[in-house]
Amino acid sequence: MAKLEGKVLVAQGGGPTAVINQSVAGVVLEAREFPQVTHVYGALHGVNGIINENFVDLTVVATSNLEAMANTPSSGLLSTRDKPDEKYCAKIFEVCKKHNIHYFFYCGGNDSADTCNIVNKQAEKVGYDLRVIHVPKTIDNDLQVTDHCPGYGSAAKFVAQAFAGANLDNRAIPGVYIGVVMGRHAGFLTAASALGRKYEDDGPHLIYLPERPLTLEKFGNDVKAVYEKYGRCVVAVSEGVENEKGESIAAQFTKGEVDSHGNVQLSGTGALGDMLAEYIKENTEIKRVRADTLGYLQRSFLGCVSRTDQEEARAVGEKAVYYALRDNVDGSVSIKRTGDYAVSYTLTPLTEVAGLTKKMPDAYINEAGNDVTDAFLRYARPLAGVLPEFQLLDAPKVDTSAQK
Amino acid sequence: MAKLEGKVLVAQGGGPTAVINQSVAGVVLEAREFPQVTHVYGALHGVNGIINENFVDLTVVATSNLEAMANTPSSGLLSTRDKPDEKYCAKIFEVCKKHNIHYFFYCGGNDSADTCNIVNKQAEKVGYDLRVIHVPKTIDNDLQVTDHCPGYGSAAKFVAQAFAGANLDNRAIPGVYIGVVMGRHAGFLTAASALGRKYEDDGPHLIYLPERPLTLEKFGNDVKAVYEKYGRCVVAVSEGVENEKGESIAAQFTKGEVDSHGNVQLSGTGALGDMLAEYIKENTEIKRVRADTLGYLQRSFLGCVSRTDQEEARAVGEKAVYYALRDNVDGSVSIKRTGDYAVSYTLTPLTEVAGLTKKMPDAYINEAGNDVTDAFLRYARPLAGVLPEFQLLDAPKVDTSAQK
Repeated sequence: MAKLEGKVLVAQGGGPTAVINQSVAGVVLEAREFPQVTHVYGALHGVNGIINENFVDLTVVATSNLEAMANTPSSGLLSTRDKPDEKYCAKIFEVCKKHNIHYFFYCGGNDSADTCNIVNKQAEKVGYDLRVIHVPKTIDNDLQVTDHCPGYGSAAKFVAQAFAGANLDNRAIPGVYIGVVMGRHAGFLTAASALGRKYEDDGPHLIYLPERPLTLEKFGNDVKAVYEKYGRCVVAVSEGVENEKGESIAAQFTKGEVDSHGNVQLSGTGALGDMLAEYIKENTEIKRVRADTLGYLQRSFLGCVSRTDQEEARAVGEKAVYYALRDNVDGSVSIKRTGDYAVSYTLTPLTEVAGLTKKMPDAYINEAGNDVTDAFLRYARPLAGVLPEFQLLDAPKVDTSAQK
Repeated sequence: MAKLEGKVLVAQGGGPTAVINQSVAGVVLEAREFPQVTHVYGALHGVNGIINENFVDLTVVATSNLEAMANTPSSGLLSTRDKPDEKYCAKIFEVCKKHNIHYFFYCGGNDSADTCNIVNKQAEKVGYDLRVIHVPKTIDNDLQVTDHCPGYGSAAKFVAQAFAGANLDNRAIPGVYIGVVMGRHAGFLTAASALGRKYEDDGPHLIYLPERPLTLEKFGNDVKAVYEKYGRCVVAVSEGVENEKGESIAAQFTKGEVDSHGNVQLSGTGALGDMLAEYIKENTEIKRVRADTLGYLQRSFLGCVSRTDQEEARAVGEKAVYYALRDNVDGSVSIKRTGDYAVSYTLTPLTEVAGLTKKMPDAYINEAGNDVTDAFLRYARPLAGVLPEFQLLDAPKVDTSAQK
């Protein structure tokens, strides 16, 4: 048990998810139980809220409000894209010392893990006693070590339901439908579009991931082949798809806008989908081609949550507190799959997660590089959880030649 | 009671909705009860399925399958954009006579009502006894006479949940968020973005409808004013917004692609949102500007249905059967609001609905032309039904000046 008396600080960084507030609720509700914790502070807008001393007192927040916030999508403590450097970290310690903060929990992706790692190293360097725990979240599902990331399951559910519906729509009024899905480097979320397939000819019929290069020629030929077979075609494309030189195809449309982590803007524009649709219109005989970019709904849509994801997001927050306040250690909370489907939680050194990206394993991608495998479906199904039921009409065709 | 023995034919036209199959289930399950009905046929792909005798026999479809299909979004009998002319209608009669079809139910919007009207007139002209009932549906909610259209409530719920989530996302990582919503001539669906507002500063802060001209200058000034007040801005824009000359702003990006009803393509591209985002980036100091186009998810997303909408969509299908098979009359089924909230159903002459469009009443639009009124919220809330709960964190700010 960490005996160091002081304050707990919790914050959220990076892109929001549907369940990131579950993790904060987990941290706050558990931390408030420990006698050495004098206060639980929340920093607003991530590390930015620390250096600006923009704190709220979570010690006195009603449990009912925390529980209601836990069920609310997007970061309740607000977020940031700031990436602390040495100077930024020096300011963080100054503020932590002033407020007697000795336990820091940061919910975020690999950029936030990187922040945790830098802060942790700085703390060691100057001899300030600070437990730092990275609480994982990301809809991209691209963190190292952990089997999967809280936030992914709910986003996967949204994408699956979106494509299941788009596929039914495409049946009704045939043509080519292209849906662009979030995911900077890893295709996990785009791959989730396959989870809504039920009937043999259900789309998406083609799935393009950042893990495999995409040429317009291959894309056009694939679409033509599907269209010839089914008279229609549903395509899922990751916003992170790259050409054969490893260059982002979407980035050319966003004028190279980058955030402080050096990430080029990919989302918030329909340009990639529009370009792909235009290519099909100009290079095939197919007339009806439509492109949607699923956009920010994937991570924030109100009311689309995987129950498993919800529970795990809560658990990683709770576990984070036990690691810091009982075991007095730093690290990143990871999820280990221990059954079908069951998980346990472990602690991973920050250096093994910080700034690193996991890609889809080869076993999850088909040979042609335009679909997922059954292994991926088995991996992802329990994470997205139960999808709403749908059923096609099962009616016999009328033999009109036999009609009187 | 119509004594004419023969077949019932049901079909679906135009854009799918989340509840259009409820109406088909209502028609089929009720029609099968009438002794003068020899068979219930479904035409695949609307009127196109009639002239091609592309029929399925709904008489023998399991009730459980019909019920499951009723809960499935998008047109279970598939759809069409065909608009019958005189020659097309002559072919329809030929097929109807051959198959002894005397009752025709067509689920669709104002274009489908127009089809019903043409078919009905043609039937009278050639003396063929054919009851024709238009069963209303449209997410645009732009049919005349009826208080609202089946399909609108569920789409409104989707749009409300999308903007409620996008607003929470925009709180977490501030900037300007622009969401483009479907609706060719009427702003009802875009207006539904306001249904997810709960807190005083919740977005969408600006709502632009086809009913009011949009100039880029006004748009830019409005966004700047909101951004100065809240440090962020969420905007809902209809894909159907027009400039001061009454020209579609989106249509200039889709190269004038038109369907057989003369409708210019507005959906299936992110160009309008991207253009508006670009304008803000170039004409203000605001750096983070993102645009999403909600696209086909609005009408087909699996698992987002208003219960009221579901029930009413079933009822209009059932009522259609009673009008044709009990009362032996033609027309379009309309919904009349008889309480807060209660409805009854009436029959409207096809000519009062066919091809006509209803716009948002002035009372539903604020004076500045950039938001909806409370009157609209009262109108639309019962249609979208209950939205998922969400709650902001209610935590006191820490007074850091008083800190030891």
